[in-house]
Order: sequence, then structure tokens, then C-alpha cells
Amino acid sequence: MFRREQERIFGRGWCYAGRAHDLASPGDYVLAEVAGESMIVVRDAQGAVRAYANVCRHRGTRLIEKAQGRLAGHAIQCPYHAWTYGLDGALRSSPGMERSEGFARAEHGLIEVRAQQWDGHVFVNLAHGGASLVTHLGDLPARLRPWGMADLVAVHEIVYSVAANWKLIIQNYSECLHCPIVHPQLQALSHHLSGVNDPPHAAYLGGHMELRPGVASLTEDGKAVAPPLPGLDAAKRRTVAYYAVLPSLLLNLHPDYMMTFALHPQAVDRTRIDCLWYVHPESRASAGFDPTPAVTFWDQTNRQDWQLCERAQRGIASSHYRPGPYANREELLWALDRWVVERL
Amino acid sequence: MFRREQERIFGRGWCYAGRAHDLASPGDYVLAEVAGESMIVVRDAQGAVRAYANVCRHRGTRLIEKAQGRLAGHAIQCPYHAWTYGLDGALRSSPGMERSEGFARAEHGLIEVRAQQWDGHVFVNLAHGGASLVTHLGDLPARLRPWGMADLVAVHEIVYSVAANWKLIIQNYSECLHCPIVHPQLQALSHHLSGVNDPPHAAYLGGHMELRPGVASLTEDGKAVAPPLPGLDAAKRRTVAYYAVLPSLLLNLHPDYMMTFALHPQAVDRTRIDCLWYVHPESRASAGFDPTPAVTFWDQTNRQDWQLCERAQRGIASSHYRPGPYANREELLWALDRWVVERL
Amino acid sequence: MFRREQERIFGRGWCYAGRAHDLASPGDYVLAEVAGESMIVVRDAQGAVRAYANVCRHRGTRLIEKAQGRLAGHAIQCPYHAWTYGLDGALRSSPGMERSEGFARAEHGLIEVRAQQWDGHVFVNLAHGGASLVTHLGDLPARLRPWGMADLVAVHEIVYSVAANWKLIIQNYSECLHCPIVHPQLQALSHHLSGVNDPPHAAYLGGHMELRPGVASLTEDGKAVAPPLPGLDAAKRRTVAYYAVLPSLLLNLHPDYMMTFALHPQAVDRTRIDCLWYVHPESRASAGFDPTPAVTFWDQTNRQDWQLCERAQRGIASSHYRPGPYANREELLWALDRWVVERL
Repeated sequence: MFRREQERIFGRGWCYAGRAHDLASPGDYVLAEVAGESMIVVRDAQGAVRAYANVCRHRGTRLIEKAQGRLAGHAIQCPYHAWTYGLDGALRSSPGMERSEGFARAEHGLIEVRAQQWDGHVFVNLAHGGASLVTHLGDLPARLRPWGMADLVAVHEIVYSVAANWKLIIQNYSECLHCPIVHPQLQALSHHLSGVNDPPHAAYLGGHMELRPGVASLTEDGKAVAPPLPGLDAAKRRTVAYYAVLPSLLLNLHPDYMMTFALHPQAVDRTRIDCLWYVHPESRASAGFDPTPAVTFWDQTNRQDWQLCERAQRGIASSHYRPGPYANREELLWALDRWVVERL
Repeated sequence: MFRREQERIFGRGWCYAGRAHDLASPGDYVLAEVAGESMIVVRDAQGAVRAYANVCRHRGTRLIEKAQGRLAGHAIQCPYHAWTYGLDGALRSSPGMERSEGFARAEHGLIEVRAQQWDGHVFVNLAHGGASLVTHLGDLPARLRPWGMADLVAVHEIVYSVAANWKLIIQNYSECLHCPIVHPQLQALSHHLSGVNDPPHAAYLGGHMELRPGVASLTEDGKAVAPPLPGLDAAKRRTVAYYAVLPSLLLNLHPDYMMTFALHPQAVDRTRIDCLWYVHPESRASAGFDPTPAVTFWDQTNRQDWQLCERAQRGIASSHYRPGPYANREELLWALDRWVVERL
Repeated sequence: MFRREQERIFGRGWCYAGRAHDLASPGDYVLAEVAGESMIVVRDAQGAVRAYANVCRHRGTRLIEKAQGRLAGHAIQCPYHAWTYGLDGALRSSPGMERSEGFARAEHGLIEVRAQQWDGHVFVNLAHGGASLVTHLGDLPARLRPWGMADLVAVHEIVYSVAANWKLIIQNYSECLHCPIVHPQLQALSHHLSGVNDPPHAAYLGGHMELRPGVASLTEDGKAVAPPLPGLDAAKRRTVAYYAVLPSLLLNLHPDYMMTFALHPQAVDRTRIDCLWYVHPESRASAGFDPTPAVTFWDQTNRQDWQLCERAQRGIASSHYRPGPYANREELLWALDRWVVERL
């Protein structure tokens, strides 16, 4: 089932692959793990973002091991026999093949897949054909435009390794009935019944919750770590938006900062979660800026959640487990179930 | 094969689950691992011992993680969404489900399986139907009554993790031909040919061995660590009884103390063994009581045995292994083989 | 596929099992891992080398755990019930079986497989029938006789654990196109295009390379660590011979020393490599002898290679990998591919 999900959900969907900010100039690259595969995501000479399998066309060697960097000479060179590819994926040089009859360099470029951007986020799709990223996302780009995500810059990262299936992480993310029980510090800042969910969409599940009066953001003390993001109106400054962009990105949008959770299924019962915090570049540059109250708040909340996801994983692994009923306010979980079943 | 054994042997048999002493009052519970499943074994309000799958009926969360304790308010509460069950397994409270049409609390009680007691031991059977524990045990309860096992109290515990299949542990337990070679300290106290086995029974395999003249018990120096158990006649004070209560409990009954080995298969080549030493409560309370000579004696003997079981596991894993002939005094091994084959 | 290779390639071929030097006298033994099986390779009373499965015929116990030694009393005794076998594999003693009707000792000797020697090397073949080792090797014994391998003695050992399939290790070994890129220190001593490969043979793949003028051997400083081996003519003193004796031995023959790499596949993506350095016994005995420059040179080179093999393993594991074209000077890789395919 895990392999089937990797193939049919992560291998065919638009998967989060990183931030356009990390690909500022031609030759800048990041490695992205998509459906368990290592992909090179790179800015090409024309300024486009492109994605290639991290596999040499000669003897299959992994081309790049370092997670992020700038390619010297705008070239990807295999460390084994020095086969060299351009930023467009074309094989430029293949030493030793000169006398190999019938060998055509043009047939041995890197395997390319689709990479597309939305508001500062880069997504990769291993499948050929199908809707573009923006078409796929429907009304989400318009809905989230006020937060100006493309401008935001990362200020902190925590990588979690959770002993639970990726779907349990999204389930946990998609309802706040557990909040008063598990997250008293969150409940004190934002009432768990204040939330309103958007109708489920094939690309995302989410909605928003309201901050309690006197609370400016979700941080340790309820004070903002930065001024409100410039595009937000008065109403949006009183809310936190939560979106699961299926299957692999969770987005938390606060009045003053953004968070991304990138889900990487490692095994049926193991998920790596790369969690980043972002603010407006002017905030980051301002004197005395300190994201710690936002980081600490969510790190505590995350750990409470991962512990529950791990308990759920252990319970569900029992032969005595049978699916139970959902509450009304668990409607996004039901939508997630259907979304998964449809794709499998 | 391992999964088949878990299903057909451990999943359908009476498996040792702990001591009634640990369930003294209503709300006292222990977690038991039965056929790889976590079960909550609890004393209910009427004083009966009951067993439930450790799985919430809402979203499958493992309800309890702590191995042993007393349930506050006589309730089992899920830490995720606070679904709350009584000691009778009934769902008492399910916050957030008020407006879920068609939801009936009565249909969502904990999954219950049979728990029964014999002379201070608690057993769990995951299968529905079949003989009661005491019917199943046949003449064993009468045979072992003199030791008064229900009264005895634990004084020491060692948990072993052995890289061998559970059947090799029982094979090793079921013959003493290896004793003069492997256990010189045991052979000095009890001659390996002094044993007499009972006829094999569907519930148990065992018999007894005699202590050599001048030896009072199996301890480092051959002296007893406590006065003889009150129910033993002169003959029984000269013997050690050994019973494998299939599939998961090994019982050693000495004149002055009892031992239990609870077998927990973890993998085809890995077994966890929880080993406990017990004495009469008056002995434990007496001045200067010290079980160390009994603990040390068996800890040494156990380690000698586990090492052999691990060597047997490694050898049997070879494609060159083929089953060999048994000696006459390995008749219980033959009985064990047939017992296993019949159940698979 | 890994199990199929173990069965059809390692389980049916002549696999390297150690050095005759370690079996100098009757009763001397080494344990060899062949196709994942533990085998006892022993010098018998008549001076022949023989190989037995390391499995007792009684209850399957692994008979010997220590990697190398001399058998006391020319007997192999099981530590469990003292069944005792002679160096000829015959069951000599089986305590406790006296009254077991129908039991015949003669039917319970150790499982024997073929062990044969070539020029100081011992090989084991788990399959019955088929060509003898020397017939199988064809012209290789004659070709390598000048190095006098039987005389050489081990002076150093390093065991590597490489996260790559065994075939990638042999691929890496079988071409030097990567040498100028990856091994500058090797390239400085021996030009990568100086090599000439022998025609591929069913038993081996290999050839030789030339040392650059002024270079005496492959060592840190290009100086020999010992005088030239006595059987080498002037031409051979200017070369290094490299032979993969399929499937499990790699042989490096320098003017002054020999190396063996014994490959032990542990998993589809894990190979243990036992690497030894040997010199002429007179060199070892001579004052001031120090193999360090040869050991350090190859340890550095080996680590460079294993790192590439591990990168290749990671890349090939991608679903985007597809076999690429070989260069002319990768002809031994093509031969290896065909050799594997024929056997599977």
C-alpha cells in the first residue's frame, strides 16, 4: 500500500519541492525528494525552474549529494566519469565515448519532469501530462494572494522524524477537536470552534481559525514577532489560515509569519517533516527581530501532535482496529479519505 | 510462518498475560502483549478481570502507553479526543459527536476478548469460543495446587531479548540432556537424568527433577532462600517442577520459590522473555530475606541457554539444515513439534 | 533478485573461501561465508582441505562460532549436546542416542561440499557436480604462476562494509576510465590508458596496467615495499595485474605484493569486503619491513571507489534509472553483465 501511494499519489501529483528564493540565479539548485526519488531542481540560463532526475545517464550514479548550492560553470558533472550536463539537461560532454559507435549525445540528456511555481513555492510533478500547477490549484492562489508568500524569507527550520504514516499527519492537521485536550496553549490563543473550513477541493483541504481578542498571533505570549504582512486587511489580521496542499505541503499563515511543513513519507510508519518559519524580508532586517516566540510555540505544538500521530499509528496497526465514525467537525478527514481512495 | 504462528497459535490460544496480584482493586490494569497485540487487562467494578484491545473506537489511537497502573475515575480516556470508556468497556463519553446523525455510543464500546484466571495467573484468549482456561488446562491446576501459586509475590524481574525463535526456547526448556555439558552448576544440584516427564498434554508439557541429597533448592549454593512453601509435602520439597504452559508461559516451581518466563515472539528470530521470581509473602516480609542466590543461579543458567538457542537459530537458518533425530529423553520436543503442526 | 543471485551465482560457483596458509596442519580450520552460509573449511588427517556446513545434524546448532582456529582432538564437537564429528565429517559420538531405535550414526555425518585449492587460495563450491576448480579456471593458473601466490603471507587486513550491490564493486574494479577523475594518486603512478584487458573468460575478467617510468609499485611514494617477487621477469616487474575471479575474489598483483578482496554480499545494497595485503615470507622477515605505504595507498583508493559505488547504488535505485551505453574501454562490464544474465 505504501508503494502504491508513492506511485499513484506522490508519483503523479504536484509535490512541494522548495522555495523559489533558493533558486535566485541561473545555476542555483536544490535537491528535492519526490515520491522517494531524488530530483535536481535548478534555475536555468533563461530563468526558468527545471527539474531533473538525479541520475547519470551513463551508469546511473547519483549526480549531486549536497542538498543545495550553485552549480559551477552552469554544469552538472558526474563525479564518476565526468559526464557533463547543461542547465537545460543536455549532455554536453561524455569523455571516453568518442569511439563508441552509434552513441548519440542528444539521446542521453537528463530525465526531465515538470517543475512549476506558485507564489514563491516550487512544485514538481513526476508524471507527464495533466493539469498545470496553477490550474490544478483552482482558487487557492487568489485566496492566499494577500499574504504575499513569494516575498517571504525563511528564518528558521526544524526537521522532525515522526513514527506515523503521512496520512495521519494530515488527519491531525485537519481538525482542531483535539486542541482543547492536547494544546492548551493554542486553545488559549485561538478557540478550537472558531474555525471555518473551505469546501474540500481536489488540490487542497483547509480553512481558517480566529485569534482571540487581544491575541496578535500564535506565539508563546500571543504577541506578534513582526508587523502584519502588508497585503492583509483588518479581518485577515485576526485569523490564521491552515491549508493542506495535497499531498505534501501544509501551510500555516499567520498575520505576521508563514510556516511550511513539507511531508516526506519514508516508510508506511515513518514520515520526515521539514518545518520552516518565514517572515517579510523587512521584518527580518529590522533591529531586534527575533522569531523565537513563534518557533517555540509551534515546536511545542508540533511535538504534541507528532506524539498523538505516533500513538494513532501504533493503535491502527492492531488487528483489532476498525475505522470509526467521524464527528461533523472532522469533515476534512472524510474528504481526505475519499481523495486517497480515488487516487488508489 | 511467523505471522501464521501469531495468528493460529498465539492468536487462538490461552496466552499468559500477567499476575492477578497486579490487579488487586477495580481500575488496576496491566498492558499485556498477546500475539503482538497490546491488550488492556483490568479489574472491573464487579471484581472480574477483563481484557480489551488497546485501541480507541474513534480513530484507532492507542489508549494507554504505561505498562501498569490504576485508572483514574475507573475510566479509560483516549488522549486524542477524550473518548472515555468504563471498566466494562462501554463508551461513556464521546465529545464532538453530539451532532453526528446515526452515531450510537452503544455500538462503539471497546473490543473485548476473554480474560480468565488460574491460581493467581491471568490469561487472555483473543479467539471467541472454545474451552475455558481451566477446562483447557485439564489436570494441571490440581497437580500444581500444592505450591499455592496464587499467594506468591514477585521479588525480582529480568527481561531478556533472545535472537532465537520462540519454539527453540521451549525446546531448550523441555530437555536436560544438555545440562551436564552446558550447566555444570545446575548438574551439581540436580542430576539431569533424575527427571520424569508427565505424558504430553494439549495445554502443557512438563515434569519434574530431583534435588541431589543435601541440596535444598536451585540457588548459587544449594541452600533455600526461604522456608518451603506451606502446601508442599516431603516429596515435593525434594523436587523442582518444570511446566511449559503452551504457548507462552514457562513455570519453574522450587521448594521455596517460583519463577515465570513469559515468552513474547517479536520476530521469527527474536523473542522477548520476561522472567520473574516469586516467594511466599511471609518470606518476603521476613528479616534478612534475600532472593539473590536464586536470581543469580537462574540468570547464569538462562544466559547459557539463550546463547545455545541463538546458535541453534543461526544453524537452522542455513539451507543445509535438515531436521535430525531426537533422543528418547527429547520426547517432549517431539510432542511440541506435533502440537505446533496440528495448530498450523 | 538478490536471493536468486545468492542461489544461482554464489550457490553454484567456485567461491573464494580463504588461504591454504591458514590450514597448515590437520585440524586447522577457517569459517567461510559462501552464498550467505557458514561453512567450516578444514585440513583433514590426510592433508586434504574439506568443507562442511556449520550445522549440527542433531538439532541444527551452529557448530563453530570462532572465525579461525585449530580443532582440539581433531574433532568438531557441538556445544549443545556434544555430538562429535571427525575431520572427515563422520559422526563419531552422539550421547543420549544409545536407546533410540533405528538411529544410525553413519547417516548423520556433516553435510560436505567441495573444497579445492589453486596456488594457495581455497575455494568452496556448494553445488554438486560440475567442473573442478582448476578446470574451471582455464588458463588463469598458468598466467598467474609467476607471482608464486601460494608462497605469499598476509601482512595486513581491512574489512570494509559498502552500501552497494556486489556487481557495482566488480564494475568499478573492471575499468579505469574513472581513474584520472577519482584517483589522481593512482593516475600519477600508472596511466589509466596503459591497461590491456584479457579476453573475457567464464571464470575471470581482468588484465594488467603498466607502471610509469621510475615507479616501482603502487604505494604512497611509488617505491616498492619489498624486493620483486622471485618469479617475475623484467616485463612483469613493470605491471600490475588485476583479476576478478568471479564471483567473489578480486586479485591485485604488484611486482612486490599481492592483494585479495573477498566480496560477501550481505543484502541487495550491502557488500562486505575483506581486503588483505600479502608479501613474500622473506620480505616479511627482513629487518625494517613495513607494508604501510602499500596499505595506505590502496586504503585511500578503495575508499574513493566505495564512495562512488555507493553513489551508483543510490542512483540506480531510482525509478528514473535506465541502463546507459558503455564506452569501448568498459568492455569487461559488458562481459560481466552477460555473465550474470547467463547464470540467472
